[in-house]
Amino acid sequence: MSERAIGIFDSGVGGLTVLKELARQLPGEELVYLGDTARVPYGTKSPATVLRYSLEAAAFLVKRRVKMLVVACNTASSVALEALEQHFSLPVVGVIEPGASKAAALTRNLRVGVIGTEGTVKSGAYARAIRTHDPRIEVAAAACPLFVPLAEEGWAGHAVARTIAAEYLAPLLARKIDTLVLGCTHYPLLKKVLHEVLGPEVQLVDSAEETARMVAALLDERRLRRRGLPAGPHFFVTDVPTRFERVGGEFLGAPLLGVEQVAID
Amino acid sequence: MSERAIGIFDSGVGGLTVLKELARQLPGEELVYLGDTARVPYGTKSPATVLRYSLEAAAFLVKRRVKMLVVACNTASSVALEALEQHFSLPVVGVIEPGASKAAALTRNLRVGVIGTEGTVKSGAYARAIRTHDPRIEVAAAACPLFVPLAEEGWAGHAVARTIAAEYLAPLLARKIDTLVLGCTHYPLLKKVLHEVLGPEVQLVDSAEETARMVAALLDERRLRRRGLPAGPHFFVTDVPTRFERVGGEFLGAPLLGVEQVAID
Repeated sequence: MSERAIGIFDSGVGGLTVLKELARQLPGEELVYLGDTARVPYGTKSPATVLRYSLEAAAFLVKRRVKMLVVACNTASSVALEALEQHFSLPVVGVIEPGASKAAALTRNLRVGVIGTEGTVKSGAYARAIRTHDPRIEVAAAACPLFVPLAEEGWAGHAVARTIAAEYLAPLLARKIDTLVLGCTHYPLLKKVLHEVLGPEVQLVDSAEETARMVAALLDERRLRRRGLPAGPHFFVTDVPTRFERVGGEFLGAPLLGVEQVAID
Repeated sequence: MSERAIGIFDSGVGGLTVLKELARQLPGEELVYLGDTARVPYGTKSPATVLRYSLEAAAFLVKRRVKMLVVACNTASSVALEALEQHFSLPVVGVIEPGASKAAALTRNLRVGVIGTEGTVKSGAYARAIRTHDPRIEVAAAACPLFVPLAEEGWAGHAVARTIAAEYLAPLLARKIDTLVLGCTHYPLLKKVLHEVLGPEVQLVDSAEETARMVAALLDERRLRRRGLPAGPHFFVTDVPTRFERVGGEFLGAPLLGVEQVAID
């Protein structure tokens, strides 16, 4: 069982920031990644539609006999995690709880900000998860819909990204947050800009790092950890791989090889 | 036959700029609109995937016995028009040819610019269509992937839209274009910014206006024109209507009523 791969899915390339952390923290694991690029993005779609897409993506990975599912998409984790756990009999890890628990541990003034897609923010999943750790924490959330296209189209380092970030974050700064959860897998690409806008006092929580830590702990707990040399991640997408390879290479910081197109709908 | 509705489809809300022009120029026609909001956008997806989605969208409208199909999406028109014409036995009008013919008629220096999604620009459909009218015309095209999210998220009037437009348009200005085709249904919302960046010398071609003119001419030619009072457009979407109603209302400049969710995949 421990020899089996970890299955990771996302709406597109964003989850590669999670895959990258998994590969770094768990170098012995086989990783299988599915990006639903024919239907990306999930962040502007309804919970019902995201749930349907998530069940289809998970079913594809489960058929490939993975030992664990990692939902490397904040929107899907926000609205589909419980349904996935009920539907499949294997451990399912989302990106919300790891980020929430880290934020709750880090905040000193009990004021945490969360940024994410429209879907993630509307779901209220981060606020609920953070308050489970400490009900005194005030959570302020802001949807940042332009961050995903800025990151995907290579504008993360441009001055306009800073201007846009300043507008999005103004209400959170007004609430005097000391911790900000990057509640979308694309946002680590904007870390530099976010640091500039927020100043050195506000700590950023990158869900990818925390999620990989939680996966490692769960593998150990269930004695599912794999030792030895893996074959290198296997990538599947639902649209032609060209754009995924190009944009995803930027996210991964390495070329994407052997990406295969599959149908899951 | 003439009593039947005109069927219009788009990946989402963008095609509402075409519907608005159709309603203005053809006030006697019944209009049925389908927005494939569960799979939007088409502009970053492969031709094969956009073709599949377009055939499904068209099939839905044809089943509702429309008398004509209007492909109110530049990406779908770029890659799927011929297949739609072959597949369905009713007149099909896309947005490429109307804009191309207008641009060819307007240009004085024979240098035309085209802006659109990645899919539209890569297809080369506008350049081919424009050169059919006059092979001497030089066509310079630029993909403007941030324009759609800027328009949808309400940033079209913000200073960052101008900065981004200036970067996208610089290569076209360097080519000394005197005419620019707005090759994406979202772009009319950015007209003001585009005028500012391009100056008063460059004429903008809005495909929506030209498409409605071409539809009117075709209806007259085939004696399919409807006279009398229509019931008001009927809207269908493939995801929950909430976001379509909110964002679409901005595009239409009027509230969207009675939007129905349907499955087409």
